[in-house]
Amino acid sequence: MPTEPGRVEILALAGLPEVQPGDDLAGLIGDALEATPRALPLEPGDVLVVTQKIVSKAEGAVADLRTVTPRPEAVTWAERWDRDARAIEVVLRDARRIVRMDHGVLIVETPHGFVCANGGVDASNVGPASGDLVTLLPADPDASAAAIRSALRARFGADLAVIVSDSFGRPWRWGIVDVALGVSGLHPLEDLRGVPDADGRVMRTTIRAVADELASAAELALGKTAGRPVALVRGANPPLGEDTIASVLIPAEMDLFR
Amino acid sequence: MPTEPGRVEILALAGLPEVQPGDDLAGLIGDALEATPRALPLEPGDVLVVTQKIVSKAEGAVADLRTVTPRPEAVTWAERWDRDARAIEVVLRDARRIVRMDHGVLIVETPHGFVCANGGVDASNVGPASGDLVTLLPADPDASAAAIRSALRARFGADLAVIVSDSFGRPWRWGIVDVALGVSGLHPLEDLRGVPDADGRVMRTTIRAVADELASAAELALGKTAGRPVALVRGANPPLGEDTIASVLIPAEMDLFR
Repeated sequence: MPTEPGRVEILALAGLPEVQPGDDLAGLIGDALEATPRALPLEPGDVLVVTQKIVSKAEGAVADLRTVTPRPEAVTWAERWDRDARAIEVVLRDARRIVRMDHGVLIVETPHGFVCANGGVDASNVGPASGDLVTLLPADPDASAAAIRSALRARFGADLAVIVSDSFGRPWRWGIVDVALGVSGLHPLEDLRGVPDADGRVMRTTIRAVADELASAAELALGKTAGRPVALVRGANPPLGEDTIASVLIPAEMDLFR
Repeated sequence: MPTEPGRVEILALAGLPEVQPGDDLAGLIGDALEATPRALPLEPGDVLVVTQKIVSKAEGAVADLRTVTPRPEAVTWAERWDRDARAIEVVLRDARRIVRMDHGVLIVETPHGFVCANGGVDASNVGPASGDLVTLLPADPDASAAAIRSALRARFGADLAVIVSDSFGRPWRWGIVDVALGVSGLHPLEDLRGVPDADGRVMRTTIRAVADELASAAELALGKTAGRPVALVRGANPPLGEDTIASVLIPAEMDLFR
């Protein structure tokens, strides 16, 4: 599987067992890399995309709704929109602010600064017979990515970039797309300002959200129902280096959609 | 290049010459498919992603700013934010409504219903020595995609799905990602509601914006400066069928970010 210019390959890794709190996630991913044809050896510019759910599960970022007492506002809103008031309570409890709470949609800013539906709190794919469990976002997705990267580098003797991804909705367009929650070893933005385009014209305002595009690309190989939570993207050659996902977040004073 | 489960391959097509108004774009793309190793034969589920700029150029969706007289509002705003007042005039002239016009950012709703910066009007990569030319969005990107699909089906005797893509910014996150402007032969949304997830739990609200993810994935192979405007995505196997990009657009009464 050698890389060629203009060719990108995405491999869904096979063979991860159900992840439990406290599991050695990097170890499980390393085993999956070994079990996936053509994934090894790692190549420079390889990007590992790890979906949020297994990171949250391994880190124990899970809430048991049986322990949650919803505030009256959560009860009222949940009844109106046929939602679980306890899950709404979990979202509100952690939110930095409510961005929109209308039409049955609850959009908040998380403590990390992400603006997303339900603050990333999610009931799907938590595990068998887990009707009362929800996953929360990892507390520090950059650190989650860095830990996986470090362990894999030690095991395989090669560096790679790691993205922790999640599925976010967007204003104006239906449907979710995967974006980056955390990064290690790559810059989430590729700044092409000042780089001449194919005509030699200098592009003034092109900053490419390459980590988000990598997350979306990985999702195409993973699907939503196949139980494959990790993909390797080869050939995209994103800008490598030390950075954090905070680089992507538009600060409040520049935010036109508060 | 056979497809395998969980493997997606993206090939940037080589060999497109500079596109001019009136060019047979589908013919040029067909030639590029023939010149790209492993692109042919086409396989079921193949998706061709064609970036907007060459579609607009072939269709003559170009404005010559030397013929444009900006309104006073455009002049004032352009002076304040160091923009070309004539280009602002082109954006305002075609806009269905202004969504935001602040911080030097002009976000409008286009006649198609897209909400994007500068209404998709773009000065980069228009052609050599073209300082006064800008491209507009294609008038009907679904029709643009359908015409390319139809011509390639006739030439190669195999169907494929076609996406016309463009780079859009997003609220809350810096950077542009490629999304679908027009589609032919695939559903832009994959509705997984009612499909059991890996645990057998029924997912209630998962609709995947697969056409947008395909557009973003293609961009990883194309880059912004390499002069490669078309990619073939193999192995993603999106939901095939007749549909339009209007399926993706959130109607005004459901739009929380007017």
